[in-house]
Amino acid sequence: MNSTFFFEKGVVMKKQFDERNLTMVMDFYELTMANGYFKDEDKERKVAFDVFYRKNPDNAGYAIFAGLEQIIEYIENLHFDEDDIEYLRGQGLFGEEFLAYLADFKFRGDIYSFPEGTIMYPNEPVITVVAPLLDAQLVETAILLQVNHQSLIATKTRRIVRSAKGRAVSDFGARRAHNMDAAVYGARAAYIGGAVGTATVLAGQMFNIPISGTMAHSWVMFYRDEFEAFKHYAENYPDATVLLVDTYDVVKSGIPNAIRCAKEVLEPMGKRLKGIRLDSGDLAYLSKKVRKMLDDAGLTDCKIVVSNSLDEWTIMSILEQGGCIDSFGVGERLITAKSDPVFGAVYKIAAVEENGVFQPRIKISENVEKITNPGLKKVYRIYDENKKAIADLIAGADEVVDLSKPYRYVDPVKPWKNRYFENCTAVELQQLVVKNGKRVMDRVSIDEIKKYVQDQLTDNIWEEEQRFENPHNHYLDMSPAYYDMKMSLLHKLTD
Amino acid sequence: MNSTFFFEKGVVMKKQFDERNLTMVMDFYELTMANGYFKDEDKERKVAFDVFYRKNPDNAGYAIFAGLEQIIEYIENLHFDEDDIEYLRGQGLFGEEFLAYLADFKFRGDIYSFPEGTIMYPNEPVITVVAPLLDAQLVETAILLQVNHQSLIATKTRRIVRSAKGRAVSDFGARRAHNMDAAVYGARAAYIGGAVGTATVLAGQMFNIPISGTMAHSWVMFYRDEFEAFKHYAENYPDATVLLVDTYDVVKSGIPNAIRCAKEVLEPMGKRLKGIRLDSGDLAYLSKKVRKMLDDAGLTDCKIVVSNSLDEWTIMSILEQGGCIDSFGVGERLITAKSDPVFGAVYKIAAVEENGVFQPRIKISENVEKITNPGLKKVYRIYDENKKAIADLIAGADEVVDLSKPYRYVDPVKPWKNRYFENCTAVELQQLVVKNGKRVMDRVSIDEIKKYVQDQLTDNIWEEEQRFENPHNHYLDMSPAYYDMKMSLLHKLTD
Repeated sequence: MNSTFFFEKGVVMKKQFDERNLTMVMDFYELTMANGYFKDEDKERKVAFDVFYRKNPDNAGYAIFAGLEQIIEYIENLHFDEDDIEYLRGQGLFGEEFLAYLADFKFRGDIYSFPEGTIMYPNEPVITVVAPLLDAQLVETAILLQVNHQSLIATKTRRIVRSAKGRAVSDFGARRAHNMDAAVYGARAAYIGGAVGTATVLAGQMFNIPISGTMAHSWVMFYRDEFEAFKHYAENYPDATVLLVDTYDVVKSGIPNAIRCAKEVLEPMGKRLKGIRLDSGDLAYLSKKVRKMLDDAGLTDCKIVVSNSLDEWTIMSILEQGGCIDSFGVGERLITAKSDPVFGAVYKIAAVEENGVFQPRIKISENVEKITNPGLKKVYRIYDENKKAIADLIAGADEVVDLSKPYRYVDPVKPWKNRYFENCTAVELQQLVVKNGKRVMDRVSIDEIKKYVQDQLTDNIWEEEQRFENPHNHYLDMSPAYYDMKMSLLHKLTD
Repeated sequence: MNSTFFFEKGVVMKKQFDERNLTMVMDFYELTMANGYFKDEDKERKVAFDVFYRKNPDNAGYAIFAGLEQIIEYIENLHFDEDDIEYLRGQGLFGEEFLAYLADFKFRGDIYSFPEGTIMYPNEPVITVVAPLLDAQLVETAILLQVNHQSLIATKTRRIVRSAKGRAVSDFGARRAHNMDAAVYGARAAYIGGAVGTATVLAGQMFNIPISGTMAHSWVMFYRDEFEAFKHYAENYPDATVLLVDTYDVVKSGIPNAIRCAKEVLEPMGKRLKGIRLDSGDLAYLSKKVRKMLDDAGLTDCKIVVSNSLDEWTIMSILEQGGCIDSFGVGERLITAKSDPVFGAVYKIAAVEENGVFQPRIKISENVEKITNPGLKKVYRIYDENKKAIADLIAGADEVVDLSKPYRYVDPVKPWKNRYFENCTAVELQQLVVKNGKRVMDRVSIDEIKKYVQDQLTDNIWEEEQRFENPHNHYLDMSPAYYDMKMSLLHKLTD
């Protein structure tokens, strides 16, 4: 992490933003269905719902799973307040018995999930909710919304971080975020995805993320001239002076005034100019020109920060042109994931309890890729001898997957081939995180999640899956027994 | 409004979601600047900041201004809690005097704004904040975030509503929204933009928006067969039965089962099947086929609702192909404004008080379109005799704009031309909404805002500005005195 532009943090007080009751953030059909289930006493039958997605954003080779911590907080806090019940009563659709049931409602299910920060791929169950039908139905919208948003931003941020080739990337996006939560949870997801920090104060306060910030154009415009503005800032923050140099004219005015400020204001105090920021114009051209002007003035240690509608493509282009940049402030295109702003995780029923046994359910579709993976199952990540993740594997929940000897699997795209994992290890990806509605997973710090992302991408994930152009598609294989079960269900339904 | 799919609402309890303290949702530089201003006693000097944007999303001819109500709530509730101060102290940058000042901080300024729902155009000041420098600086991020998000979604929704040519459009987007607020405030903005309602329960509860919802695929998959699922739903909601018919096979299974449900379950109760919903496949083709099947069965009053990654372009295409559709449920592409998810309103200093007089400030840029409009000013909408808005006009705050006789104005794109408004009327667009930090504008109901949008587009805004392809660019003219002032400032700064 390039900490140059971040201030040291002292005591941090966690702000419990998440104590909001978010129960009513749900699609109304969750309630019309719940009421229907309730009337038939179907509500107590257990079901399993899988959360999965079908396509990586930006046609990438993978995505980053984020948002789990907020899902657990939501689940634990789930309850209908008196005014919620009153509002629902006013809809004129629900009986008093159902409303009384909701008033006492607590989520009673179990939730299995990938650890937050896991590299994930299409069509595998990232989260599985096993709960009485009514409970499982009610949490659909909020779980999807949280996974979709945070995974989207973490994944997009990782692309930008990759393009910066080791230079710092910070989130500057709050003002273009899709409202308050998008700024705050977006900053969290960006940090998980590899940003070194954020400009959004509340995100720093809630999640212990480094915050940064210096000046806007308004600072420079408020004072009668640019040098006076710079001088005033340097006197206030002699240890952290980063000057915005593009309010009038970078080359003729901004940089000469910044150099003068370094010489006349900071150096007499024994201080150095920490950095300058460019927020407009041709950043490749200007950064090279500015670097030379600073170096010629002896300010070789002065960093160059740039911002202004950046994303992975503009950053790659600037660096290919030899842009002299130490740090990128990335705003609107990160915080909205502009190039592909929809993350499409879905919540599909996979199994229904009948007389104490879970029976698989499958959703057929005209589009083959929309057919779901039925039943209770486990997902394994398969590693080769070099710890590279060569595939993920779906098997039935009760199957034993023993990789101590060659293990035959089915590639569902080419099921006729006989294939084996040899000299591999398997790690089960889902863990029990909520049991009977209560958190059983320890809280994981955001820095651990961030490190987990970084470690996987460094140690386990093929470079071929990480490149932007035509990335390798990770294999999602099946155990022979699981594949046969799915095929027989399909035959039964379509015969 | 097509109310077929909306349930009647009774008592509505407003949920005060906005009682959250959102003060810390700001970029950190607002605080580093505020601290700098504070130390020099500059904090009491008044300034004027303008909120404006430079480009309509989707290269459209206009945008819809939304989010004002939330801005006023934010301003009135602005305060730093004890743990906020503690967090800021921990940053190690701020003195105790400044922190004590923040602990007692209340916003002391005035805010002028277009009425919410006003059709707006690039480069005109939609909101102007006139306040002591420190106060004006601190509210930048939250104001921009709110305007940007809600205006984005209202504007995008209007495009979708336009494409539907009078058919109902509902917001189904919560699960793909950029977190909780994006779902809730997005639903509000969508309603303002012309959606007939939302599926998001909390948005209905908070803003008195009609909510709708029927069933997901999980309902159909839970039961042993599709007819049993339909029957169960119809028995629960005989007056509001809308059946999702694409879980297995629309033509072979879904519609036959829906018709059977209408005949065997609903008709014996004296009820009619309200509608069916298609959520996948070729919606143009299927809707025509389904319409015929329903009509042949005597269900001519059964409505067809469609959803599945819709936007203005897919809807236009479906309707051009003769799709038989009564109502559109629009999700991810509405709630994320997928085609152009960044609304770029900015907050620029326009004037600074010096010895009791506001002196104009201008921001120069290499890009001519990025040069700001300086000074305290008024914005007028100019209407011709037919009440069509032919231009907007910027004049100095102290100027008298008298249109009772021909009025000479300057088109800044062609300033050499002598042009006059004749037989026109002018309406000032900004109104005082906050005075000394307190709301002075009456609350406006969301239905009034929605109607105001609709009325402007019907009565005042040229069709040529509303079309999608190459819309007419609304003129933003200037009074001669204002134009001269701007030019002389530019000369002074660039000579």
